[in-house]
Amino acid sequence: MDFNWYMPVQVISGRGCVRTGGHLLRNLGRRCLILTGAHGAKESGALDDMLETLREAGVEATVFPHIGQNPRVSQCQQAAYTAELCRAQFLIGIGGGSVMDAAKAAAWLAANRIEQVEPLFAGSLRRPPLPLVLVGTTAGTGSEVSAVSVLTLDADLPGGPKAGCKKSVTHPSCYARLVFADPSYTASMPRSATVSTALDALSHAVEGFLNPQCGDMAAAAAEKALPLISEGLRWLAENPGRPGGAMREKLFYGSLWAGLVLNAEGTAYPHPMGYVLTEDFGIPHGMACAAFLPSLTRRAERWEPERAARLFALCGGKEAYDRLLAAHVRVPVRMTEEQLREYASRWQDLKNFARTPGGFTAREAVDLARELFIEK
Amino acid sequence: MDFNWYMPVQVISGRGCVRTGGHLLRNLGRRCLILTGAHGAKESGALDDMLETLREAGVEATVFPHIGQNPRVSQCQQAAYTAELCRAQFLIGIGGGSVMDAAKAAAWLAANRIEQVEPLFAGSLRRPPLPLVLVGTTAGTGSEVSAVSVLTLDADLPGGPKAGCKKSVTHPSCYARLVFADPSYTASMPRSATVSTALDALSHAVEGFLNPQCGDMAAAAAEKALPLISEGLRWLAENPGRPGGAMREKLFYGSLWAGLVLNAEGTAYPHPMGYVLTEDFGIPHGMACAAFLPSLTRRAERWEPERAARLFALCGGKEAYDRLLAAHVRVPVRMTEEQLREYASRWQDLKNFARTPGGFTAREAVDLARELFIEK
Repeated sequence: MDFNWYMPVQVISGRGCVRTGGHLLRNLGRRCLILTGAHGAKESGALDDMLETLREAGVEATVFPHIGQNPRVSQCQQAAYTAELCRAQFLIGIGGGSVMDAAKAAAWLAANRIEQVEPLFAGSLRRPPLPLVLVGTTAGTGSEVSAVSVLTLDADLPGGPKAGCKKSVTHPSCYARLVFADPSYTASMPRSATVSTALDALSHAVEGFLNPQCGDMAAAAAEKALPLISEGLRWLAENPGRPGGAMREKLFYGSLWAGLVLNAEGTAYPHPMGYVLTEDFGIPHGMACAAFLPSLTRRAERWEPERAARLFALCGGKEAYDRLLAAHVRVPVRMTEEQLREYASRWQDLKNFARTPGGFTAREAVDLARELFIEK
Repeated sequence: MDFNWYMPVQVISGRGCVRTGGHLLRNLGRRCLILTGAHGAKESGALDDMLETLREAGVEATVFPHIGQNPRVSQCQQAAYTAELCRAQFLIGIGGGSVMDAAKAAAWLAANRIEQVEPLFAGSLRRPPLPLVLVGTTAGTGSEVSAVSVLTLDADLPGGPKAGCKKSVTHPSCYARLVFADPSYTASMPRSATVSTALDALSHAVEGFLNPQCGDMAAAAAEKALPLISEGLRWLAENPGRPGGAMREKLFYGSLWAGLVLNAEGTAYPHPMGYVLTEDFGIPHGMACAAFLPSLTRRAERWEPERAARLFALCGGKEAYDRLLAAHVRVPVRMTEEQLREYASRWQDLKNFARTPGGFTAREAVDLARELFIEK
């Protein structure tokens, strides 16, 4: 038994929760910068709700709507620079994982010297970040409740990954101060995004729950997440063409529970292996991670059979679990042996690999990628 | 569904966790004040572990071993004054609920003007508290993970309760920064304290779980707490004279899960009604609260039968639940009608009463007390 925990974010949830949060925002300052992507924040209604709430609370807001998918460090720097220009006292991120992850980095850079990319990834920026408020508009990332920000590099990091690669920073300074969690903002997501983000949430819950070191708090969160997410994905499989309906609320709250799992336990190999499918083949993040889930549960059945059985039970049984992955996961990727050699060096000594039942090596990763993505 | 949450404490758990926490303590400052009671901190081994860790980390420590049961505000003020004298940069509370509750108030008073008792209870002290570290040596209060401090008044509060009454303050400034949760420190508790503190934890879990407004996070915590605590109490009932044995770990972690429930949902009427049994009749706090649990579950069976059924299932069935209360709860109290009249005015408009299935009024409280404590 154990009780290890640290998740200091204040989460306020429910339909309409942004509109009643004015006093909490006012406590953070008189001027803020709102980061969004091009469409989601507006179409979901979240941006309008937030602007109205800020107006009533007497907080000046500037909108920076330039965060793209798989956001680059340079976008975070631009946002931080804009925050400086408008003397923002706090930041608000409204959108999916890309926007929220970028907002975490921007809030920290804005309180420091903006060009300090290496210290950002080393977690050694000197000053604490500007207070950060997050409003999620997808149901997958769980970034609302995690200290993780995943960014794409504009330039090679000395001795580290290269330009174009994803790189994550995990640090207590990446926690938001305040989160408004309103499932109704996910209603405008297209079906493809609903499926891919739900697969991301599923990956967080499965990878954490199967972590041999998984603590009791994270396991309890996974017990809540897995039934909600698998039920939502099953409904989507059985209702092709329909966008989500009543399942949206389950997927939304499921993604937050799964975010707690991710935050406490980190991820196993599906996440870092998924990154290359996104970077080099354009596969959406959640879909990319889920491509590796069947192999992960096979390993769990061998090395931790009781845990695997519990996982399947939480998802409606092993057959139902396999069926929902088969129904949703489409990863039309063909790799070359040369690409595999490159990935092999990138996958050396990843701490994620140790979080796998029975352990996992770069060699095994290459074998798995060959099995999945190289035609015999 | 919902996902409301705020519990910013960093909890580090497991046997020996204090001895590995030096770097975390060093981050809080170079000088600290340690609050303890007369015996528990020393006898449990927690104080020696902490002093050794602080010594290795180069942190100067002063020990203030003067916190009593049901601590008075004046004890917190004395501790805060001592913290000032030794220029402590942070406080450490080692003990049961009394010590931890006193340490919360002392840490906040020490950063403000120490005589400000009314602002303390109003939650309006201007400066944030000194950072606070807590180490629990009992398995009941859950104070480690709550923003609640319950103190006994030395003098009447203007327009409020009188000298000798318990008064609670609930405020984000009462959260600890850091908690070391080591179940081995509960091994030195006498059996009577083990039983009474376990009944306190049971009350937290039951009162919160039956709160008609109980949120999903608190319900998930209660689902973890109730089996652990009821199993521990059952073992104690079946093993009279034995102090706790292997059950101590279950009761300890169960009390922390129950603390999360308390922190999210507050308490219903057993807690405030229990206060008068402690103040006027010397009944230990947990025992005093548990005296009112049978009536609370009867109300739940009437007003929220599904919730009540789930509660009983988590505790091994209704019969087992009733049996363990019957085995442990002994409250030899006889009240007078005059006392009841006094309590009636004290129980007016308590917000705890609304957190009861079907609601609860001061009149009903008086009727219940008469039924339990006035001979016919």
